[in-house]
Amino acid sequence: MTDPAQSDLVRAARGEPVDRTPVWFMRQAGRSLPEYREVRAEVAMLDACMRPDLVIEITLQPVRRHGVDAAILFSDIVLPLKALGAGLDIVPGVGPVIADPVRDMAGVERLPGFEPEALGFVGEAVRGIVADLGATPLIGFAGAPYTLASYLIEGGPSKDHAKTKALMWGAPDVWRALMSRLADISGRFLRVQVEAGASVVQLFDSWAGGLSPGDYRAHVLPYSKVALAAVADLDVPRIHFGVATGEILADMSTAGVEAMGVDWRVPLDEAVTRIGSGQAVQGNLDPTLVFAPWDVLAARAREVVAAGRVAPGHIFNLGHGVLPDTDPDVLTRLVELVHEIPLDD
Amino acid sequence: MTDPAQSDLVRAARGEPVDRTPVWFMRQAGRSLPEYREVRAEVAMLDACMRPDLVIEITLQPVRRHGVDAAILFSDIVLPLKALGAGLDIVPGVGPVIADPVRDMAGVERLPGFEPEALGFVGEAVRGIVADLGATPLIGFAGAPYTLASYLIEGGPSKDHAKTKALMWGAPDVWRALMSRLADISGRFLRVQVEAGASVVQLFDSWAGGLSPGDYRAHVLPYSKVALAAVADLDVPRIHFGVATGEILADMSTAGVEAMGVDWRVPLDEAVTRIGSGQAVQGNLDPTLVFAPWDVLAARAREVVAAGRVAPGHIFNLGHGVLPDTDPDVLTRLVELVHEIPLDD
Repeated sequence: MTDPAQSDLVRAARGEPVDRTPVWFMRQAGRSLPEYREVRAEVAMLDACMRPDLVIEITLQPVRRHGVDAAILFSDIVLPLKALGAGLDIVPGVGPVIADPVRDMAGVERLPGFEPEALGFVGEAVRGIVADLGATPLIGFAGAPYTLASYLIEGGPSKDHAKTKALMWGAPDVWRALMSRLADISGRFLRVQVEAGASVVQLFDSWAGGLSPGDYRAHVLPYSKVALAAVADLDVPRIHFGVATGEILADMSTAGVEAMGVDWRVPLDEAVTRIGSGQAVQGNLDPTLVFAPWDVLAARAREVVAAGRVAPGHIFNLGHGVLPDTDPDVLTRLVELVHEIPLDD
Repeated sequence: MTDPAQSDLVRAARGEPVDRTPVWFMRQAGRSLPEYREVRAEVAMLDACMRPDLVIEITLQPVRRHGVDAAILFSDIVLPLKALGAGLDIVPGVGPVIADPVRDMAGVERLPGFEPEALGFVGEAVRGIVADLGATPLIGFAGAPYTLASYLIEGGPSKDHAKTKALMWGAPDVWRALMSRLADISGRFLRVQVEAGASVVQLFDSWAGGLSPGDYRAHVLPYSKVALAAVADLDVPRIHFGVATGEILADMSTAGVEAMGVDWRVPLDEAVTRIGSGQAVQGNLDPTLVFAPWDVLAARAREVVAAGRVAPGHIFNLGHGVLPDTDPDVLTRLVELVHEIPLDD
C-alpha cells in the first residue's frame, strides 16, 4: 500500500476502518526537536517557512524520528499573508507583529490579493515532501479567517482580542470585507497544498474559543465555511481545530469538515455528543502530560484511545501543540504505545 | 432596609426574590478608574492591599462611581501568602513572581502557616468598608487552592501550568500536602473577612479551566471544598468562579456554593443545565463588549439578563474582569441599564 489516501490517518479522518489508531502531534515539527533547532539556528521563522529546502527538511524530521502517521506542512498561520506581501513579521518570544494593523476599510483594501505565483514555494515544498513520504500522508495547513483577522487587527499579541471584537461588533462592513478577503486567502492556500499533493487539510482557528457561541455563529462560522469549501471538490478529509472550543464544537463541526480536533478539556466521548454524527475526532491528550511519570501518561493515553472509540474515526493527537520543553523521546514512546493498543481492546 | 444580608445581591445569590437584578463587576476596583490610578500612582500593588486606608478607599471607589450593588474587597489572589511571609511580589506587567518556587516537600514545609495576627489589617479594612457601605454588601475574596498552588509552583507567569500539573501527577504526596495547606489558608482568609463583616464570599479559581474534568475532580475539587467549608457555618452565600470552566462547571458547582460564576463562553441558560438545581448564577457579558457601540452592548446585556432568568437567582457581572482600557462611564451606564430592566419583562 503506497497510496497515502488509503493510509490509516486518512481513513480514520473519513470514519473508515483502520489497522491501528493513527497518531500525529500538532507542532510536531518544532522546538522540541534538536534537529529542528539546528536548522533554525540561523534562520528567522517566516524565512524558514518560505525556503522549500528547509520546509521539506523540517516537515520530515518528526516523521523520521517519531514514526508518526502524518507529516504536517511546516508553516505558520500568518505565512500566506506574509508571502502575499502584507507587512508583518514573527518576533521571537512575541509572535506575529503587524506594521500597519487593519482598523478600517482602507486597511482592508491595502491587503494583498491572492497571487498563486507568490506561493509557488509552497507547491514546490509540498511536492518535495510528498515524494519523500511515500505512503505517509501530508496534512495541509491554514489559519482560519478569524484567527488571521485577529493578528491583522490587534497588530501584536493579545490576550482578549478586544480590538478584533470591537471591529466585529462596531464596523460590520469592514468586518465582512476583511473576513471575505481572508476566507479567500485561507481557502486558496489550502487548495494550493492539496493540488500539490497534501492528502488531508487542517484549518486552525486558534482564537475562536474566545468567542461566545452567538458571536461565533454570526461573525465567524460563515467565513470558515467559505475557506473549507475551497477544497470540497478535492476529495481530501478536512480537520478543524481550536483551543477552548468546547462551547462552539457543535457549531464548528458544521463548517464543512470530516473530523473535529478537540482540546484536552473536552473528553472525546463527550465531544462526540456535540459534533455531527458520522464525524471523526482528533485529539486530545493534555500536552503537559509529557512531563508526568510514564505510567500516568500511558494510562491517560489509553483513556483517550478508549474515549475516541465512540467516534466513527479517531486520530490520536495532543489537545494542543507540543510544548517546546517536551522530551522528544517521550513522544516517540507515545506513538509506539498508541500503535500497540489493540483496536478491539 | 439597612441590612446588607437583605440586599438584592445577597438575596439573588441565595435564589430569593429581588427588587431588581443586582450587578457588580469583577475588577471593578482597578485600573479602569482614574481615581484608582491616582491612589496607586506611588504605591506597589501588594503594599496597597496591606494598607487599610487604601484598601477602604479603593474598595469604595466603584460603589460611589457606578452605583453597583456590592463592593468586593480590594486584594490580590496571592495577598494572604504575602502577608503570611511567603517570598513573593507582584511585578507590574508580569504578575506574581515567587522567589523560591515550591517543587518538593521541603518547599511545602517552608510555607508559612496561617497566623490571624498577620492578617489583622484585613479585618480592619473590612470593618472600615462595611461601616461606610451601610446596606450595600461587601464580597469577601480568596484565591482557590489550585490557583494559589499554580503561582507558588510556576514561580512566575505561565500559559500552560506545566510545572504545576507535573507536580500534581508526579508527586502526589507533595501535592496533597501543598493543597491541604493552601485550602486551610484560603478558607481562613475568607473566614476573617466574613467575621469582620463581609456578607458574601467569592472563591476565584482563575486557572482551574485549564484542567481536564478528570484532573479537576481528582486533584483540585476536594481542596476547594475544604476552603469553602471554612465559612459554611457563617450563613453567607458563596460564589465560585473561574474562566474557561465550561467543562468543569458541573463539578465546581458541587464544591459547596450557593452561586456559580460563569464566563462569557457559556450562555447562562446553558450553565443552569450543568450546575446544581437551586443554585444561582453570576455573569456573564463578554468584557470586551464595553468597546462595542452602545446599542450592541445594550442588546447583549438584555440577552444576559433574559438568560439569567432561568436560574433561581442571577447576579449580573462581566464574564471576566474589567479590562484596564474600559471607559468607566460605559460601566456606569451598564449598571443603570441592568437596574432598569423590569424583572417581569
